Amino acid sequence: MADRVVTAFAPATVSNVACGFDVLGFALEAPGDEVSARFREGPDPQVHIDDIVGDGGRLPREAARNTAGVAVQALLTALGERRGVAITIRKGLPLSSGLGGSAASAAAAVKAVDALLDARAPVETLVACALEGERIGAGSAHADNIAPAICGGFVLVRRASPADIISLPVPAGLTAVVVHPDIEIETARARALLGDTVRLADAIRQWANLGALVHGLHRGDFALIARALEDTIAEPRRASLIPGLMAIKRAAVEAGALGCSLSGSGPSLFALCGDAKAAAAVGGAMTKAVRAEIGGEPQTYISSIAPQGARVVSACAS
Amino acid sequence: MADRVVTAFAPATVSNVACGFDVLGFALEAPGDEVSARFREGPDPQVHIDDIVGDGGRLPREAARNTAGVAVQALLTALGERRGVAITIRKGLPLSSGLGGSAASAAAAVKAVDALLDARAPVETLVACALEGERIGAGSAHADNIAPAICGGFVLVRRASPADIISLPVPAGLTAVVVHPDIEIETARARALLGDTVRLADAIRQWANLGALVHGLHRGDFALIARALEDTIAEPRRASLIPGLMAIKRAAVEAGALGCSLSGSGPSLFALCGDAKAAAAVGGAMTKAVRAEIGGEPQTYISSIAPQGARVVSACAS
Repeated sequence: MADRVVTAFAPATVSNVACGFDVLGFALEAPGDEVSARFREGPDPQVHIDDIVGDGGRLPREAARNTAGVAVQALLTALGERRGVAITIRKGLPLSSGLGGSAASAAAAVKAVDALLDARAPVETLVACALEGERIGAGSAHADNIAPAICGGFVLVRRASPADIISLPVPAGLTAVVVHPDIEIETARARALLGDTVRLADAIRQWANLGALVHGLHRGDFALIARALEDTIAEPRRASLIPGLMAIKRAAVEAGALGCSLSGSGPSLFALCGDAKAAAAVGGAMTKAVRAEIGGEPQTYISSIAPQGARVVSACAS
Repeated sequence: MADRVVTAFAPATVSNVACGFDVLGFALEAPGDEVSARFREGPDPQVHIDDIVGDGGRLPREAARNTAGVAVQALLTALGERRGVAITIRKGLPLSSGLGGSAASAAAAVKAVDALLDARAPVETLVACALEGERIGAGSAHADNIAPAICGGFVLVRRASPADIISLPVPAGLTAVVVHPDIEIETARARALLGDTVRLADAIRQWANLGALVHGLHRGDFALIARALEDTIAEPRRASLIPGLMAIKRAAVEAGALGCSLSGSGPSLFALCGDAKAAAAVGGAMTKAVRAEIGGEPQTYISSIAPQGARVVSACAS
């Protein structure tokens, strides 16, 4: 039992989704992060990080300062668990990409440890604990990456804490394109650009679009989804962080995307498409546009909206 | 033909609906306004108001300053119609009640004149022309009363102009209670209380709730609808206009309402209930609370969400 190792995977997620700043997100099939967890005897602290792979040595190894470490500690505390746990994090997601990397690590970590403990904690508990991790990683606790990283699908976070998470329907064919340009944006810096207030007129337009997007997902109305994929709040304030953003968006829509905007706080961009064929064309057009506008070699992912979020991928004796 | 008189009815409407400031509205079965229209020969202006009944002489008789008159003129212009038209307005709605009175007059007027001309103008044209009337009556052109007054049902106005109006599904049983206290609030004054900016955190909560409400209507999830019926934008700023607002809201919810907030800019209050029985109890509780907190004799209406909006109720030779 003490030698058991449980490994969980949690996917990349696209948050904000144009009109849903801080409240909408969806999961990709891949890439994602993996976290392995084992029991550990020995001195404090209760959570220990054995290793982090794939981060180029940039993430904190101290559990109390690491997204996944904090999330695991929160889970142990929530469950009244006294045993010690050690984790190994394998980053499949690029750092500071806007693809929910800290959420994926936190989600995989709580899922792995929940399975290691055979605790079967309710999803609200997993979200709340992963959110504690996000708070360290991203500087604020909104659950629009955490919720889809844990639950999968296309989710609306009505309230982060206590979690009130709504799984939205995903129309057949809906396909995401994500392009990660070879630049980095710190989430905290992107957030600082927003300020604390917004124009009422901009906010009204945002909630009209969000309501329309939810309706469009229910009805499978791609034309309405396309009209609703407009961001009047974050994108205009963050556009300066992405050279050529407008040209890249135009390339996506001209190639057949329903809409295109920043993934989270960027620099990754996402587009939604009505089918896989359109997504292939949009992926090509966006990649080309990113090369031309930003330079470097972008990474491009094409994925359906993944119905499954964080999940155990292996459980074995080490 | 010259003596034909067409009369149309348009219902009272509840706009904003807690979390949908400027974008959500629904129609009641009653009360409403009626407008009769006939052709008229003679000198300019092209639109003439024969009479207004039920307004206590308070509404402008000059067509160019009257909501319904302006709406009719806009329709004649849009249709390239040269003939003159005269209208009679019968106000079933109290003035400045927050129940979409100017929208009901404008909607009934364009519907009556459209039928008089046998023009069958598309709904977008009727909305656009009625909106011209609203602009005179309410000082701004948002379509959250006009759209349900014309289309009926529970609508989301994604964009007022050009009109992008979404008919939301209405779960079986959903019933509205509306209580009109014996006080008046000028829409312009209520709007001035809002200011031009809002806190980003408040706006995020509003659009999370709006998305949740749309989802709840699709799923018939009354518990979610109840959680979503929260207004972080307008109600807090306008609460001072309604003595005892919090006590009235509490009375509604304690009697079984899913939620309760201002109808439009008030002073009317609406509640949504899961069935007619709850609505009866909530109507009683709200009426009692309004008497206690505000005094005077409120008018109380209980209605399903009316599937039909503005409609011709008679067409005959005079």
